[in-house]
Amino acid sequence: MSSSSDADTDTTVIVPVENLRAFTERVIVKAGAKPAHAEALAELIVAADHRGHFSHGLNRLDYYVDDIARGVNAVDKEPEITKQGPSTALVNGNNCIGPVVGKMCIDLAIEKAKSSGVGWVCASGSNHFGIAGWYSIRAMQQGLIGMAFCNTSPNMVHPRGKERVLGTNPISVAAKGEQGDEFVLDMATTAVAQGKVEIKDRLGQQIPVGWGMDANGKLSTDTKEILYSGGLCPLGGAEETSGYKGFGLGMMVELFCGILSGSNFGTGVRKWTNTGFESEANLGQCFVAIDPSAFAPGFEGRLSELVKMVKTSEPAEGQTDLLVAGDPERAHIELCERLGGIPYHRKQIDFADFVADKYSVDRLVTS
Amino acid sequence: MSSSSDADTDTTVIVPVENLRAFTERVIVKAGAKPAHAEALAELIVAADHRGHFSHGLNRLDYYVDDIARGVNAVDKEPEITKQGPSTALVNGNNCIGPVVGKMCIDLAIEKAKSSGVGWVCASGSNHFGIAGWYSIRAMQQGLIGMAFCNTSPNMVHPRGKERVLGTNPISVAAKGEQGDEFVLDMATTAVAQGKVEIKDRLGQQIPVGWGMDANGKLSTDTKEILYSGGLCPLGGAEETSGYKGFGLGMMVELFCGILSGSNFGTGVRKWTNTGFESEANLGQCFVAIDPSAFAPGFEGRLSELVKMVKTSEPAEGQTDLLVAGDPERAHIELCERLGGIPYHRKQIDFADFVADKYSVDRLVTS
Repeated sequence: MSSSSDADTDTTVIVPVENLRAFTERVIVKAGAKPAHAEALAELIVAADHRGHFSHGLNRLDYYVDDIARGVNAVDKEPEITKQGPSTALVNGNNCIGPVVGKMCIDLAIEKAKSSGVGWVCASGSNHFGIAGWYSIRAMQQGLIGMAFCNTSPNMVHPRGKERVLGTNPISVAAKGEQGDEFVLDMATTAVAQGKVEIKDRLGQQIPVGWGMDANGKLSTDTKEILYSGGLCPLGGAEETSGYKGFGLGMMVELFCGILSGSNFGTGVRKWTNTGFESEANLGQCFVAIDPSAFAPGFEGRLSELVKMVKTSEPAEGQTDLLVAGDPERAHIELCERLGGIPYHRKQIDFADFVADKYSVDRLVTS
Repeated sequence: MSSSSDADTDTTVIVPVENLRAFTERVIVKAGAKPAHAEALAELIVAADHRGHFSHGLNRLDYYVDDIARGVNAVDKEPEITKQGPSTALVNGNNCIGPVVGKMCIDLAIEKAKSSGVGWVCASGSNHFGIAGWYSIRAMQQGLIGMAFCNTSPNMVHPRGKERVLGTNPISVAAKGEQGDEFVLDMATTAVAQGKVEIKDRLGQQIPVGWGMDANGKLSTDTKEILYSGGLCPLGGAEETSGYKGFGLGMMVELFCGILSGSNFGTGVRKWTNTGFESEANLGQCFVAIDPSAFAPGFEGRLSELVKMVKTSEPAEGQTDLLVAGDPERAHIELCERLGGIPYHRKQIDFADFVADKYSVDRLVTS
C-alpha cells in the first residue's frame, strides 16, 4: 500500500480501474496471449493494485508479458484435468499463464465443494498466479471458505541456515460473515514479502530486526544484503522467536503444492526475472473450497460475531483500529472509490508507458 | 523438552512408557471414566510426554481427571455424527473427554479420505484433546496427510490490542516420506505456547522480546506479567514483525473449529483450570485427512527429497542441525528409548503421587 500515501501529492496519478484493465489486456494480447487468457491475467493484475498489493500488479507486468513474448509460457494450450474424484482433482497447467490455471482450479474446487462439501485441487505446470487472495475470495463470494497456496522461487532461509530453500509460499484463506463482514487472510509465510523489502530499499528506509538475514545466516537490517545475498526470515524471525514455525508453514504450503502435484519444489523452483530466463516455471499450486453448509448452521453469524469480538476488544495505548485480515485491502478499495481510480506514483506510469512502447500498443489512459 | 536436559542428574526419574500408561488409565478410571475413554485419554497423555511436550502430559493429569471427577465431562455418553456427506462430517462430542471425540473424528476423516480423497470433520461439544500432533500422525501412519486444529482458552492478544481474544489455537500437519522421513508440524499460532512461558517463569529465566505482552498491550519480557495480566503475542510478535499474520492464522484455526462446528469460540471459550470451574468447555476441533494417491504419483519420494533439501542446505555459522518439523520430537523419542523410559523431574513424580493418593490408586511405578 505504499502508493496510497502519495494520493494527495503531485507525484500521484489516478488510473480508473477499467483503463488499467483495458491497458493490461492489450499489452498481454500483443505479447501473444489468447484474449481469454489475457483477460484472466489482466483481472489478477488489476485486483492486486486495487487491493493495494502493488508488488503483484502493474509493477510486475513486464515479468508476465516477457514470459509470454519469449515463449516461456504456452499460449496455445489449456490446462487439463489429469485425475479426479468426488472431492479432488489434479490439474496439469500445461505451462499456461498462472491465472488461467488458477481460475480453472478454483472453479473446479468450488464445484466439488458444492457437490461433496470439500474441493481440493492441485496443479502442476503452472506459472506465477498473482495474489493468492483472488482465488480464495472467488470461493468466498459463493458462500464458501476459499483457500489458495502457491510455491514460489526460493528466498526463505531456515532459522539455522544461510541458503534460500523455500519460497515466500503464500497462504490465503477467505470467508464471509453477515452484512459485508469478511476474513481474508493473504500472507507470505516469510516474515514479510520480498516486495516489502524492495520498497524499503528503494526508499532507503530502516527495517526492523526479524525480516531477513545476511549471507551468513545472521539477522540483518541491511535491505541490500537481504535482497542480494542473504534472504528472508520465515514468519517468526529467529529461532528464539519461533522462526521454525514460519519455516514449518512454508513447508506445509510446499506439501500442498509441489509435493502433492508433482511440480518443481523447494530449491528446484526457478528464479523469476524479466531477463533471459527461458525454462518453464512448473510451479505447484493448491486450491481448496469448503462448504460451511456441510457443517453447523449459522456459520456467517458466528464469523461476524468473531470479527466483532476482535474489533471491539480493548486497543493498546495509542491504537484505534484492531484490524482483521483483509481490512487493509478493503480500506484501499474504498480509497480507490473515493479517488475514482487506483493511485500510482508517476514513475509507475512511466514504466507502463515504457512497456506500452516496447509492445507498440496504446499507452495507459490516466484520468 | 525441558526435562530431557535433566536426564543425567540426580533429580531425574525414568518412567517406562507402559507404566505411565497403566498409571494414567487407573487414575482416569477411578475418577469416573469408562475404561475405553480412559484408554483414549491415557494414550494422549503418554504421547505428549513421549514426544517431549511435557506441558500436555502428566503435568496436566489433574486438569483432565478433575474435570471428570467433578462431572464437568460426560462419562456416560459417546460422541455422535450429526451430519455427514461423502467428504465431511459434523460431530457432536456430547461433552465427552477430548481424545474420545478426537479419535473418533480423525478416524472418520481417514475413512472419508480413503473413499473420496479428502475427509474434513468438525466437532463441537469437545474438551481439551491433548497434543494436536497425535491426530495428524494417526492419519500419516495410514499414508495420508493428516491435520488437526483446536480452539483453546483465550490467551492471544491482537498486535494492536491488550485483551486476550483468541486461544493458542494450534495447527498440526503431518505426512510421511520414504524410509522413515516425516514432516510433523505441531505448533501454537501464538509466538510460543503458554507452557513455554510457565517453564521460564518457574526457572526464573529471561525470555526474548516477542513472546508476550503486558496488561497495556506493550511487548514485555516479564513472565509474570505475560502469564497473569497480559497475554501471548501471536506468531510474528509485534505488528512491525508481522504479528498480524500469526493473529490471522489463529483466526483461521477458529474458523475451522468454532465457526464451522458451532461450538464456543474466541472470548467465549472458558478458562481451563483444575479448580472450581464447572461449565462445559464446548470446544471446537477440526480434523482433516487427504489421500496423496488422489494426486500425483511419487508423493513420498518428493517429500523425502524436500526434507533432504532442507537438511543438506548450508547451516549458518555455529549451527549443525537444520531441523524439519517433528525432528525435536523424534529425538526425544530416541532419548526415551536409550533411557528405557520417559525422563521426568523428581517433582513431577511427586505430583503424580499426589494425584494417586487423592484418587486412592496405586502410585506410578518408576524404573
